[in-house]
Amino acid sequence: MLTQQQIEQYRQQAFEMFTRKANLVITPDERGRIEIADFGLSDFKATGLGVLVYVNTDRCCAKELVMWPRQTCPEHLHPTIGNVPGKEETFRCRAGKVWLYVSGDSMKNPSCRPPTGREKTYMVWHEIELNPGQQYTIYPDTPHWFQSGDDGAVISEFSTRSTDDQDLFTDADIARFTRIAAA
Amino acid sequence: MLTQQQIEQYRQQAFEMFTRKANLVITPDERGRIEIADFGLSDFKATGLGVLVYVNTDRCCAKELVMWPRQTCPEHLHPTIGNVPGKEETFRCRAGKVWLYVSGDSMKNPSCRPPTGREKTYMVWHEIELNPGQQYTIYPDTPHWFQSGDDGAVISEFSTRSTDDQDLFTDADIARFTRIAAA
Repeated sequence: MLTQQQIEQYRQQAFEMFTRKANLVITPDERGRIEIADFGLSDFKATGLGVLVYVNTDRCCAKELVMWPRQTCPEHLHPTIGNVPGKEETFRCRAGKVWLYVSGDSMKNPSCRPPTGREKTYMVWHEIELNPGQQYTIYPDTPHWFQSGDDGAVISEFSTRSTDDQDLFTDADIARFTRIAAA
Repeated sequence: MLTQQQIEQYRQQAFEMFTRKANLVITPDERGRIEIADFGLSDFKATGLGVLVYVNTDRCCAKELVMWPRQTCPEHLHPTIGNVPGKEETFRCRAGKVWLYVSGDSMKNPSCRPPTGREKTYMVWHEIELNPGQQYTIYPDTPHWFQSGDDGAVISEFSTRSTDDQDLFTDADIARFTRIAAA
């Protein structure tokens, strides 16, 4: 588990990547709100990311994401529950590089490898490369994961309401969020 | 009416403001899609703005806005129609300065004056100042207008689906969009 000291250290690094790599202006209050997420796997540099939520209302959400070099956000989907459509999100690369993997035709020689020891929890291999200025929209119920390039990445996310507690992860060990048994 | 040559000239200026003032990375295709809007008033430097739509799906939308010095986006609202809530939008200032006016307690000495000759079409005077890193969310059915500072502004807009044709303007001369008679 991340210590408070580690969280503060990563938060400072996240702030520097946001402001220096992507030239974002972030207030002191926002700096203190940067979430350092390790998804409960206690291996932050391999599986994790930094998140700054600008706004999250009942209807829409905007965030900035920051990833350390070759860091992975693990495979998950945003489920439709009853007649409420799952979260829809657009990722726009602002700095660095990110490879996004979704369901669909698999890439024969993918650019990324999953974090060591967790390979079996990565099932979708349709690869999309995003460089600064490029973006991709993921619709509900679509499994996806992503990994940054050798210099890390800063990514804007525009979406419907963010409901992290509803996310379904392929990796059963992921304990960041409450898993929904039936969705 | 703006000539094609003027549109191209303003589009180039918008691109430069996006990339130099706010350090945004914009693709050549996106550069060509920057909308130069004069709201049909043929006085672009006073009433108008530049708009780059990143994404606009059925459920959410993200744009970058650019304003020339002391330019105004005229007073309007996003109406709820039947049981469909109107557009909700968050403005986040990225560079420069913008004053936003919404319904509520009026500012006694506001920082902005409406464009000359159009004063009577500006009815709401509750002032919110946004500097880089500051943001404000406007909910449906709320009249609002905004004006940039002496150096112009770059503003990110995160919102529900953008339906410009439903916007209701206070100024009856505004012909950019079809006005909805009953809403």
